[in-house]
Amino acid sequence: MEQAVSADRKGGNAVSGEFVTFAGERYYAIHNVDRMAPFFISVISSADHWLFVSSTGGLTAGRVSPETALFPYIPVDRVHESISHTGPKTLLRVQADGHQQLWEPFNREFEAHFAVSRHLYKNMLGNKLCFEEINHDLKLAFRYTWMTSDRFGFVRHCELGNLASRPVRVDVLDGLQNILPAGTPLLAQTNTSNLVDAYKWTELDEPTGLGIFTLYSGVSDRAEPCESLKANTVFATGLEVRRVLLSSEQLDAFRAGADVEQEACKRGIRGSYFVNASVEVAAGQSQRWQLVADVEQSQARVVELRKRLQREADIEDTIAGSIDMCDDELARIMAAADGFQVSAQENVATHHYANVLFNTLRGGIFDDQYNVPARDFLQTVRHFNRSVYARNEALLGSLPDVINFNQLVSMVRPHGDRQLERLCYEYLPITFGRRHGDPSRPWNRFAIRLKDEFGNRLLSYEGNWRDIFQNWEALTFSYPEFIENVIAKFVNASTMDGYNPYRITKEGIDWEVEEPDDPWSYIGYWGDHQIIYLQKLLELSQHFHPTRLAELLHQPIFCYANVPYRIKSLEDLLGNPKDTVVFDHALAERIEQRVAENGADGKLVLDDNGEVYQVTLLEKLLVPLLAKLGNFVLGGGIWLNTQRPEWNDANNALVGNGLSMVTLYYMRRYVCFLQELLSSESEPVDLSQEVSEWLGDTASALESVRPVFVAGPTSPEQRFETLQELGLAACGYREAVYRKEGFSGKVKQQPDAILKMLDDALAAIDHSISVNRRIDRLYNAYNILDLGTGTAQIDTLYPMLEGQVAVLSSGAMSAQEACSLLDALFESDIYRPEQHAFMLYPDRKLPGFFDKNRIPEADVAAIPLLTRMLEAGDDRIVSKDAEGTYRFSADFRNSGDLVDRLDALQPDYGDEIDAASERLAAALREGVQSSSVHRAFGSNVRLRGTWQHLLAHGLEAATCDPGELFFGAR
Amino acid sequence: MEQAVSADRKGGNAVSGEFVTFAGERYYAIHNVDRMAPFFISVISSADHWLFVSSTGGLTAGRVSPETALFPYIPVDRVHESISHTGPKTLLRVQADGHQQLWEPFNREFEAHFAVSRHLYKNMLGNKLCFEEINHDLKLAFRYTWMTSDRFGFVRHCELGNLASRPVRVDVLDGLQNILPAGTPLLAQTNTSNLVDAYKWTELDEPTGLGIFTLYSGVSDRAEPCESLKANTVFATGLEVRRVLLSSEQLDAFRAGADVEQEACKRGIRGSYFVNASVEVAAGQSQRWQLVADVEQSQARVVELRKRLQREADIEDTIAGSIDMCDDELARIMAAADGFQVSAQENVATHHYANVLFNTLRGGIFDDQYNVPARDFLQTVRHFNRSVYARNEALLGSLPDVINFNQLVSMVRPHGDRQLERLCYEYLPITFGRRHGDPSRPWNRFAIRLKDEFGNRLLSYEGNWRDIFQNWEALTFSYPEFIENVIAKFVNASTMDGYNPYRITKEGIDWEVEEPDDPWSYIGYWGDHQIIYLQKLLELSQHFHPTRLAELLHQPIFCYANVPYRIKSLEDLLGNPKDTVVFDHALAERIEQRVAENGADGKLVLDDNGEVYQVTLLEKLLVPLLAKLGNFVLGGGIWLNTQRPEWNDANNALVGNGLSMVTLYYMRRYVCFLQELLSSESEPVDLSQEVSEWLGDTASALESVRPVFVAGPTSPEQRFETLQELGLAACGYREAVYRKEGFSGKVKQQPDAILKMLDDALAAIDHSISVNRRIDRLYNAYNILDLGTGTAQIDTLYPMLEGQVAVLSSGAMSAQEACSLLDALFESDIYRPEQHAFMLYPDRKLPGFFDKNRIPEADVAAIPLLTRMLEAGDDRIVSKDAEGTYRFSADFRNSGDLVDRLDALQPDYGDEIDAASERLAAALREGVQSSSVHRAFGSNVRLRGTWQHLLAHGLEAATCDPGELFFGAR
Repeated sequence: MEQAVSADRKGGNAVSGEFVTFAGERYYAIHNVDRMAPFFISVISSADHWLFVSSTGGLTAGRVSPETALFPYIPVDRVHESISHTGPKTLLRVQADGHQQLWEPFNREFEAHFAVSRHLYKNMLGNKLCFEEINHDLKLAFRYTWMTSDRFGFVRHCELGNLASRPVRVDVLDGLQNILPAGTPLLAQTNTSNLVDAYKWTELDEPTGLGIFTLYSGVSDRAEPCESLKANTVFATGLEVRRVLLSSEQLDAFRAGADVEQEACKRGIRGSYFVNASVEVAAGQSQRWQLVADVEQSQARVVELRKRLQREADIEDTIAGSIDMCDDELARIMAAADGFQVSAQENVATHHYANVLFNTLRGGIFDDQYNVPARDFLQTVRHFNRSVYARNEALLGSLPDVINFNQLVSMVRPHGDRQLERLCYEYLPITFGRRHGDPSRPWNRFAIRLKDEFGNRLLSYEGNWRDIFQNWEALTFSYPEFIENVIAKFVNASTMDGYNPYRITKEGIDWEVEEPDDPWSYIGYWGDHQIIYLQKLLELSQHFHPTRLAELLHQPIFCYANVPYRIKSLEDLLGNPKDTVVFDHALAERIEQRVAENGADGKLVLDDNGEVYQVTLLEKLLVPLLAKLGNFVLGGGIWLNTQRPEWNDANNALVGNGLSMVTLYYMRRYVCFLQELLSSESEPVDLSQEVSEWLGDTASALESVRPVFVAGPTSPEQRFETLQELGLAACGYREAVYRKEGFSGKVKQQPDAILKMLDDALAAIDHSISVNRRIDRLYNAYNILDLGTGTAQIDTLYPMLEGQVAVLSSGAMSAQEACSLLDALFESDIYRPEQHAFMLYPDRKLPGFFDKNRIPEADVAAIPLLTRMLEAGDDRIVSKDAEGTYRFSADFRNSGDLVDRLDALQPDYGDEIDAASERLAAALREGVQSSSVHRAFGSNVRLRGTWQHLLAHGLEAATCDPGELFFGAR
Repeated sequence: MEQAVSADRKGGNAVSGEFVTFAGERYYAIHNVDRMAPFFISVISSADHWLFVSSTGGLTAGRVSPETALFPYIPVDRVHESISHTGPKTLLRVQADGHQQLWEPFNREFEAHFAVSRHLYKNMLGNKLCFEEINHDLKLAFRYTWMTSDRFGFVRHCELGNLASRPVRVDVLDGLQNILPAGTPLLAQTNTSNLVDAYKWTELDEPTGLGIFTLYSGVSDRAEPCESLKANTVFATGLEVRRVLLSSEQLDAFRAGADVEQEACKRGIRGSYFVNASVEVAAGQSQRWQLVADVEQSQARVVELRKRLQREADIEDTIAGSIDMCDDELARIMAAADGFQVSAQENVATHHYANVLFNTLRGGIFDDQYNVPARDFLQTVRHFNRSVYARNEALLGSLPDVINFNQLVSMVRPHGDRQLERLCYEYLPITFGRRHGDPSRPWNRFAIRLKDEFGNRLLSYEGNWRDIFQNWEALTFSYPEFIENVIAKFVNASTMDGYNPYRITKEGIDWEVEEPDDPWSYIGYWGDHQIIYLQKLLELSQHFHPTRLAELLHQPIFCYANVPYRIKSLEDLLGNPKDTVVFDHALAERIEQRVAENGADGKLVLDDNGEVYQVTLLEKLLVPLLAKLGNFVLGGGIWLNTQRPEWNDANNALVGNGLSMVTLYYMRRYVCFLQELLSSESEPVDLSQEVSEWLGDTASALESVRPVFVAGPTSPEQRFETLQELGLAACGYREAVYRKEGFSGKVKQQPDAILKMLDDALAAIDHSISVNRRIDRLYNAYNILDLGTGTAQIDTLYPMLEGQVAVLSSGAMSAQEACSLLDALFESDIYRPEQHAFMLYPDRKLPGFFDKNRIPEADVAAIPLLTRMLEAGDDRIVSKDAEGTYRFSADFRNSGDLVDRLDALQPDYGDEIDAASERLAAALREGVQSSSVHRAFGSNVRLRGTWQHLLAHGLEAATCDPGELFFGAR
């Protein structure tokens, strides 16, 4: 056993971190990890394992998805506290110095018994995690390491080291608790765990010690037979096992010093797997063993495993070899993603590796450099468009098995089928990615699908639109030849009205569907990122391929996603900006029909011949900009009126009345880029007629307001007028293309007109940026829009980090101004010196329970209805508490509840209701809702998200603790 | 402190039970409860509290429903193991004999530190539960008791007793962990517990020590403000509190001997409430304190509570008084349900009380003896039928506020409105009941609604049809005047085709709806209990009111439920008896419309004028019998062909091909009762025309087969013919009434013809019973129907307990035969001598994992397709494992999966598939499905259900351990 405890640390109990070498491999160590609040770690595998471990030792694990789990898939807070009943458990009866002592490493309740130190180690690759407890009284160290093997599953390697100078005899009871049987449905792992126990059937194959964890029959509520023919399995190597237990029923007996009896079959209760042995460990030596668990094994595979255990003497070598293979495969993947850096600063290289690792886990990796497997390309074309496939079958059939992507393009292009060209340009041969959905962020269920049913490598990806393009942006640094494919994928997924669908998968786009019965179902468009994500991809292309964008600009090989959402008219938006998107059920049905008939291209806008309607890249770049300008409030930002908050869910309360300066800052960068791109264009360009008209209307609105803001401050009336003019342009365009479900055809557009519009837009943006500089030298991130009759007022909010990140990148500042902003940021209350880090927004003093929801007496007195109700003892709207404070009913969650309550009171109070309702709504907004304009605090989850965001957006958090980033489950 | 430890038990650690007296109240004690496997206890309240506690100390609690919880509502297995992080936690630093020792009562991980004994006490009323741990080393006893108060919520009374003869000083840190904030949605308590933590905001009102647990804003995925203005609260009395903690973050510090610091506000983490004090306990004395928690308090209520805590010196007396009030109210409810027995055998009386208690909790209790509150009666009539209400408004308006039920009948009857009479006869002024849905049986969500929004007492009930009539049957022993109302409620809920809807509530009937997207949604009818439940109610009426049934027999004041299920034709049933019930969506919509227009009576069959179609009691008694006879397999039982298993879900695999002898045994009792009832009838009776025809067709089928079975054994062909004849009669009837959605009118029927049919039916039933006596003197409970072309074979199963219960009650046996059966039962493997109890069915030896799914080599060889596939290495149907065993694919759960797989193979193997499919299906049935004809074992939940079933059906389990029954959460 390599000595992990250096003499000077022994007994020291401060948390510290360092890089160490174990068995020839570099690990990052966190010493005295039990002094930290529990945190969560994702242990990585090159295969389809998922393994999320708490720093307490609690864990959940399985393969592919949570539906095929080894341990229950439960929320992270419960993983932290699960150590007493789930996962590894070690009981050691130590005979030393003539008497016997019980030691349970990692059992926090044993704290008072012995002087112990607990350390945690994670290897550089991120696929091994070692827990270590050193018992200073008994002079023993126990250590176990989680590893993965594609062939054998999950390997827990254990080591018991004798640190003393005398031999020691130890009775070992070591194992895993709460092992799920194969086929336990996810719901039964969490919500009905007690019910599924009745189906559990655990067997021991006594000759080999192989534990077999099954459901005796499938868990089903249907009245039909439902067999369950797969098993999860566990076996042990390395110990002279005396007894094997299949449950935790004898742990107390072992603790009390009794002998345990072997358990050959257990049913109707949770399964465990424990091996019992008695070992003698010489001074300075150690005893090693391992437990190996796998999931969802067919009978044939279990028979094969049993046979192997009977016959193979060197099974441990075979297992070790399979673990090495997994290491090697992961290293190859990470090398292909440029994950390895060499640096004198090991933490910097490790930090980089961790960033690339998690980026690759989400967005995936190109399977074979620039090579495309013809089989997958064919399948992809057929999946998207069966007609295109059919008419190009000869060409497609002639492709070699593996073909370089540029070669593929050069074969496809001369063929002259623009539709095939489109499919080729947006093709991405990506594998290994999966949605997050670990137990700290369970909302996006993951499935690690690496092989098809015949064991062939699968090319597959899936992710939320906002996440996956962020991941791909980073990935294209390693695969620059694919940048334009990512751009094509991006713009082909955007809609006629300038927004993006919810999800991108290998199979195409996906949107959310309204389910009337589900209060959690909701539709809408996030408004942010359409500009900045695209902008960063465009800049990348420009850097790597300075001429390529200009080439694509005029080529009609891009398309529109046909999401069946319909944004309401400007009048409706102004009327109720929180309820603005309609789900078009009839269109959704037509789309479904088209997909069934011809493939996933049925989700795109088609032309009159049923072919996908294709446009130039320039048009695709203009539409999102025009969409943003259609919601532009001069001096305020971009109006958030599509039912969704921005990236940060804490902005929920801004939906409808928020203004994003963040988006405006990024628009500046985008506008400048387009100006540059178009500067050398002189030929007219093809635009769809409706887009061209929209462009014209927008241009004239911007042109007419320019002299106004140049001359001096803009009035609320002027602001409203400009918003209305821009909004009507967008609204007219939307109505035209919604009506046609497409466009009327193409017209020629002079680049000059576009450049003029961009110039006016830039002036309006720069003006708006300049008035959003705060007295503290920071910039507003979001504002509040207060619409009156013919007026648009702007209220400001406290500053937020993302506003500063965005304005720094906007290009609007001089270097000096940027430095001043950075200084201001460090001086602001966004900065947390103790963490040497920034928060999303300042940690404000929030009102307590009694301070919320207070109505000034004068306000109550001013509303006769309230006085009457209070006199009548009717507290359905307002009550007066024992200390004389007036408060709205505790049933009210928002103004909608007040409106409902007022309706219910109509029979009793009639006209008085109408007279009071506006004042009541105002009082409610003031007294109740103001506290939730911003939620008090984001979860850790979200804060973690911040780092990802910042890193992706260029404000490198160089001071971030590498240990935290590296260990984080992210 | 009353001394709970007698000298002789001290140190003894065997489990034992006894009745003891604590503070003047009788308790049942389980000594050394920690030596038992964890079990679950429901602590009862007369108010809307729910409190489910594990014998480990883990718990979940709240008021009304799981949506308003104090501690997370999680499955029972997780409640057992939650003690380390949820609910009560006590840390005691004991200074004795010059040094300090840490004692954590009820912490099982502290086992090895001290010699301790743990005892559990539950009071007779069932609303107090006391946990006690005695530390023999420290000579201290710690005890806490859960109690409820309507005014104050949940009270945990604590007592620390010094058993030694020297004083002791103890630093106490006592409290509750993982207290939910008000308004935590159920889903967020279980599936997304980590996400809800971010919303948590816990405050301390420092002057009073009141802990306030809130969400800073509502948990919602919608992009709109969502305030949360209610609080869960905790406070302490009885200690000189030094510090209050709002989290568990300082527990380790306290353990380590440090002072803790008061926590005034905690956010973003789980809330706890701990009080810290230092107490000196004199020899033989004790220190008492209590923690009081309540949920969902408005700001006004919290202000009131705070004020009370500031001012009231005698708050403890107030709390004690409110607890006494709860006791008193519960005792009154239980007295009204005849729950109290006086007996020299205290366990018998307690057992009786527990039975009545749980019966009352489910089925409810009549609110005020035989008195009806006119307000509720009016509301009920209006709810069911607005026309009937309107035309009787004068009469209804003239009722006194409270009226005796018989008086009400005598006022309604002369009025001559048969519809009002029907609503009056089925009216049940019941309160206090709720569906089960405790965390061991979470499938029926409960809501304890005792008061309306204005605090008025609510009359309300709800339950599954099968459960609630069982509860009401027992309840009517105490309220015999309501027996006929229960009968009316029963028969008015049965359908034209002779079945019953899923659920009965105060608002009317409910059925399950198919949801195409939800694999768990399913519709169908349970076939059992329609006979026996009704039979027992009829017998009760006959005993209490010997003439009343005869009076009702001819009165057309009963109706048919109009459940939108349609049972398929006999031909279809024979074709696929597992897929037999169709949901009629159009009808469901019509019904919804009718309910909206005129009230809940819209769920009933109407006549051509839109009035509820009313028939006599006799007709309502005949229809279910005819429905059963329509599925009668001579010598086999009643065919289970309506998609549902019987009461016992273990019978799932019998759906479609099972035959219930259980139902047939009960039918015998029912037929005899009808014979008796009709024996004195001579006048013709009114029957609906279609029922009369059905009766005639059924009678002729029974008449024609009688000579055949009298002559000797019946052949499979004869059996099929009779089944067909009876089935066609039922099928013709169903099709006629489905077509009309009702009946053609009434005809006169002679009682003689009915009696003749009953006589023939009895003969056929008796014949069938006689051939189902087994060689071991037990009787078959269920058989298997094997349908061939024109033949009906019967296969037998192992015996089951319910078959014996049913046959004993059938009246078919002599006393001697009954004794013989009872002896046989004790000799059988259904009997478990160690528990002195019976199991549902014998604990059979079941095949292990490797023994399941083996296909004999000869069978494989006989199917050329398999040979071809195996040679081609195609294991999509069958594979050969490493030991040479042939097995079906592990993907197959049932024959449906095989069929799907064969379809998928069609392109590759074409005609060979058809040639092989029948043989393959047979092999699958043999090798795979046979093991699941019966599930291996029911859960404890189900076994517990057995007792309820047996008790309700007359086989009193007199030997059952009272402790278990009494403590059971049931």
